[in-house]
Amino acid sequence: MPNVVHPIGVVRSTLHALHDAPNQGDEGAPDADLVLDPRYSAAGADLGAGDEIIVLTWLHRARRDTLAVHPRGDERRPLTGVFSTRSPDRPNPIGLHQVTIVDVVGTTVRVRGLEAIDGTPILDIKPVLGPVDVR
Amino acid sequence: MPNVVHPIGVVRSTLHALHDAPNQGDEGAPDADLVLDPRYSAAGADLGAGDEIIVLTWLHRARRDTLAVHPRGDERRPLTGVFSTRSPDRPNPIGLHQVTIVDVVGTTVRVRGLEAIDGTPILDIKPVLGPVDVR
Repeated sequence: MPNVVHPIGVVRSTLHALHDAPNQGDEGAPDADLVLDPRYSAAGADLGAGDEIIVLTWLHRARRDTLAVHPRGDERRPLTGVFSTRSPDRPNPIGLHQVTIVDVVGTTVRVRGLEAIDGTPILDIKPVLGPVDVR
Repeated sequence: MPNVVHPIGVVRSTLHALHDAPNQGDEGAPDADLVLDPRYSAAGADLGAGDEIIVLTWLHRARRDTLAVHPRGDERRPLTGVFSTRSPDRPNPIGLHQVTIVDVVGTTVRVRGLEAIDGTPILDIKPVLGPVDVR
């Protein structure tokens, strides 16, 4: 059985073009909606406003054969192995975004400052962990 | 083309059984080796001791049809949607581990405190991002 990922939802955003997307969510990205597939509604049932979450996405437009890049597309920076960068181009193009939930309506989760473009598949949502003693 | 993930390496650890693994890496997990596939050596070429990284793994022993769990396996805690937990059982069983690199020898990266068991496939390595002003 191959290791196939199944989208659990999709990003809905006003960002439509890759060149419009900031490098990171805290660099001016807009709020966006995580629209969960209703078949996974039980998995998202405890998400609520104020939660800090990590969203994993499938960067479907990325190149998987890129092993080194100039960080942030700046050619003055030396070529750097992609595992030391946040480039979307990498062998498994999984995006990692830490965001705060603003609102939840049904299976639509609105988050603050997400740099993924409209239509990006979502693979997973995880809570940001607090210190050991409050788990 | 389906969304297939390809392991870029494998975890080598003294943890062999799921019941031996702590819930999180900072709860007594041992140091472990990330053994990268040599075909991805250029992607890992800039990893070095002291780097703080996020390792994404494929939790190959997890159940993908679990949508809610008792957090930390504690049945006194209410059933909770998996997107609000770090349970390995989830639709896309991707593990997320923040660790510090202790040493790099060739394509073997030793890290501090990893709770993944021996043989866990690795999907990606990303740097932990610093504040915006130092990127």
